[in-house]
Amino acid sequence: MSCRVGVIGAGTVGGGVIETLLNNAGVVKDKTGVEIALAHVAEVKEALLAPYDLSGITVSNDAMKLIADPQIDVVCELIGGIEPAKKFILAALNAKKSVVTANKMLLAKHAPELTEAAVKNGVELRYEAAVAGTIPIIKAVRESLASNHIQALYGILNGTCNYILTRMTYEGMEFGDVLKQAQALGFAETPPDLDVNGDDTAHKCSILASLCYSTRVPLEKVYIEGITKITRLDVAYAREMGYVIKLLATVRRTSGEIEARVHPTLVPEDHLLASVRREFNGIYVQSDIADCTLYYGRGAGKLPTASAVVSDIVDIARRGDGPVPAPFRYTHEVPVRDIGLLHGRYYLRFTTEDHPGVLGRICTLLGKHGVSIASCHQKEETVENSAHVVIMTHETVESGVMAALCEIDALDVIKEPTHTIRVL
Amino acid sequence: MSCRVGVIGAGTVGGGVIETLLNNAGVVKDKTGVEIALAHVAEVKEALLAPYDLSGITVSNDAMKLIADPQIDVVCELIGGIEPAKKFILAALNAKKSVVTANKMLLAKHAPELTEAAVKNGVELRYEAAVAGTIPIIKAVRESLASNHIQALYGILNGTCNYILTRMTYEGMEFGDVLKQAQALGFAETPPDLDVNGDDTAHKCSILASLCYSTRVPLEKVYIEGITKITRLDVAYAREMGYVIKLLATVRRTSGEIEARVHPTLVPEDHLLASVRREFNGIYVQSDIADCTLYYGRGAGKLPTASAVVSDIVDIARRGDGPVPAPFRYTHEVPVRDIGLLHGRYYLRFTTEDHPGVLGRICTLLGKHGVSIASCHQKEETVENSAHVVIMTHETVESGVMAALCEIDALDVIKEPTHTIRVL
Repeated sequence: MSCRVGVIGAGTVGGGVIETLLNNAGVVKDKTGVEIALAHVAEVKEALLAPYDLSGITVSNDAMKLIADPQIDVVCELIGGIEPAKKFILAALNAKKSVVTANKMLLAKHAPELTEAAVKNGVELRYEAAVAGTIPIIKAVRESLASNHIQALYGILNGTCNYILTRMTYEGMEFGDVLKQAQALGFAETPPDLDVNGDDTAHKCSILASLCYSTRVPLEKVYIEGITKITRLDVAYAREMGYVIKLLATVRRTSGEIEARVHPTLVPEDHLLASVRREFNGIYVQSDIADCTLYYGRGAGKLPTASAVVSDIVDIARRGDGPVPAPFRYTHEVPVRDIGLLHGRYYLRFTTEDHPGVLGRICTLLGKHGVSIASCHQKEETVENSAHVVIMTHETVESGVMAALCEIDALDVIKEPTHTIRVL
Repeated sequence: MSCRVGVIGAGTVGGGVIETLLNNAGVVKDKTGVEIALAHVAEVKEALLAPYDLSGITVSNDAMKLIADPQIDVVCELIGGIEPAKKFILAALNAKKSVVTANKMLLAKHAPELTEAAVKNGVELRYEAAVAGTIPIIKAVRESLASNHIQALYGILNGTCNYILTRMTYEGMEFGDVLKQAQALGFAETPPDLDVNGDDTAHKCSILASLCYSTRVPLEKVYIEGITKITRLDVAYAREMGYVIKLLATVRRTSGEIEARVHPTLVPEDHLLASVRREFNGIYVQSDIADCTLYYGRGAGKLPTASAVVSDIVDIARRGDGPVPAPFRYTHEVPVRDIGLLHGRYYLRFTTEDHPGVLGRICTLLGKHGVSIASCHQKEETVENSAHVVIMTHETVESGVMAALCEIDALDVIKEPTHTIRVL
C-alpha cells in the first residue's frame, strides 16, 4: 500500500511536513506497512526549499500543477489564509483528491462549502492540525467521544497568549513587556493582533463548537475578547483569590443553546488547565459518558504541527482504495446564545478615587442590577491617588453586570473603565 | 449505514456499553449518520440484565450463539479474564466479525495470536478501553503519533493505586487505612492484589510498549513492583524534596533496547503527571515530531470505559462494508532491557539504629559501588529508637544501587530493608 503526497507551501508548517515525510516516512512504514512518499512540492518562494534535499521530488511554483499531477494521491494545503488556499482546496477536492490542511481561518469562515465539496466528491477533508497543533483534539471530539453529548469544552488554544499570561502570572511582568520579549524570541508574531486580540482562538472555537454539536457555529457568532487589557495587577489580585488568568475558548450547551466564546477567564489554581503553562495548549472536555478528559501538547511549531498533518495523511493512506468512512455531519440547527444571557461569576476591578463612600456607591449600584457580591477587597495600595476595589460576584447574569458597570463607570469617582473578567 | 452489535458480558463495562448503546445511539446517528443498534446480549447471570430495557433485543446465555447470530456485525467481548474470553474472540474473528474488547489481561498475554486471527480474517480487533479506560491513548499512540519515534511514555494507568497514593500524599494517611476506605467506597477490589501489586498496570504497560515500538513486549519481560511497601513516611520525605510518589508504567527506548517497567516513581511536583490525582489516569508521551503530549481522564468506571468501547464500534461502523485499514504491525524485534541496567536517580530510605557512625558506613558502601550521593537527610524524628536517613543519589546504575543495598541491609545497625524508589 502506498500514498503519494503533494505539499503546497513550504513555510513553517509546510516545511515541517516536508521534513517529517523525508525523515520519518520509514517510521510510518514500520508501524503500518504503508509507504507514504513526498512526491511534489509547490512553493513560490524558492528560498524556502533550500533546507531540504528534494532530489527525486517534483518541485513547482504552481499549486494548480501539483493538484493536477496524476501521481499525487493526497494534497496538503499549508499556505494559510483565505485565497488562494480556498481555490486550491476546492480544486483538489474536485479532482477527487483528499485534502489535509492546517488552515483554521479558512475553516472557521468556509467549512460548510469545503466539507460539502469533499462529501460530494467522495474524498476526505481533514484538519487535525488546525486546532491545537499536535493535540489530537479533532479526533478526540469526533471519534473518541462519538457516543457522548459534549456538555462543555474549555480550551487554551493560543500558545502566544498562554506564554504571555504565564510570564505575567509567575514573573509579575506587564503585558507589553512580555509581548516584546515574546516577539524577540519568535513566540509571538509582529504584529501580534491575531493572537492577542483573541481572533486566532476564535477561529478554533468556531471549529470546535461546530464539531461538538454537529452544527455550524459561524465565526461571527463567537464572542471574542483578547488579553490586551489584562494587567499585572489583575493577575496578582486573581492569584490572591486562588485563580490564574487564561485565555479560554468556552463551548457549552445550555438549555437548547450553545455558548461559543473567547475571553480571559479566571481558572481555579487547582484546575488542570491552570497547569497548562507557557506556549502549551490544553483542552478540557466534559461529556456525559466519558466524564472529563484533558488533552495537552504544543499548539504550534514546525514539527508538532507537522505531526498532526501527517497523522491525517496516514489515516487516509491506511484506507487505501477503500471508500471514505461515513462523514461527520453538521446538520443540527442550534442557536448560539447571546453573551448578555451568560450566567457566571465575575471578577470586577474598580479604579476609584481614594475617598470615603466610594465602595458604598459601587455596591449599591451592583445591588440595584441584581448583582450579588461574594467577596470584596479594597486594596491598601494606592497608585496616583487611585484605590483599587476588587469584587468577586456570586453567579449572576452578564447583562446585569454590564448594566451596573455602565452606571458605575459614569461616576465621577471612577477613574478608569472597570476591568471585568469572567470566572470558569 | 448501520451496524448491529452483540455484547458478551453485562458486568460493569458490559452494562455500561449496553446502557450507552440504548441511550446514546442517537448521538452517534446525529454525528455520523450511522445507526448503531444493540442487537444481542449474552450473559449467564440473568440478574445482571435486570436494569436494562432489552425489549426487541435478543438475549441469550450462550456467547457462541451470539457469535453465530447472522444479524450481528460486531462482537464486544466484555467478560474479562483469559478463558472463555479468548475462545469467544477467536470464534468471532474466525466468523469474520470485528471484535471490540476491554480485556487487558488477555491482550497482555495473547495479543499476537488474537491480532493474527483478525488480520487473517480481514476484520478488526480493537481495544481502546483496555488501557486507561476512556482516554484515547491507543488511538493517540497508533494514529496521532504515527510518524513519531516514541522516545518515552509515562503512564498512571491504575486508578486504585493513584487514589491510594493521592490520599497518602495529601491527607498523610497510611497505605492500609486508605485501602480499606477505598474498598468500602468501591474504588478498590477485594482482594486488591491485581491493582496494588502492579500487575494490572503491567498488563497495560505490555500493551503500550508493544504499540509504541511495533514489537511484542511479553508480560514476563515487564519489571513489576507494586505500591504495598510505600509508607506515609516515604510520601512525606518525597514531598519535602519536591516530589510526589506515583505508580508509573515507564516505556522508553534506550540505545537499541526498550525499557518496560512498572514501579512507584518519584515525580517532580511541577510535572503535569503530579497533577493527575485521585482515581484519574494520565499518560505523558515524549516523541520526536510531536514533542510532549499528555492525555488525561477516567481509567475505569462503567460509563467512561463504555465510551471507549463504543468509540471502537463507531470507527468500525463508519467504515461500512469497506476493507479494513492497513493493520498496525508488531514485527520489530527489540530486546527489553534488564532492570539491573537501568540508569537513573534513586530515593533510598534507611532505617538505622540511632548510633554515631551509621551514616558514614552507609555512605562508604554506596561509594564502593559507584553510587554518588546528591543529597542526604538524617531525620530528627526517631521511632522506637530507629533513625531515618534519606538519600537521593545522582544518576547511577541500578545494579550498583542493589549491590550496595545488599551489603548495607546486612549491617547490624540497619533495622529493616531499605526503601528504594526510582525517580522520574
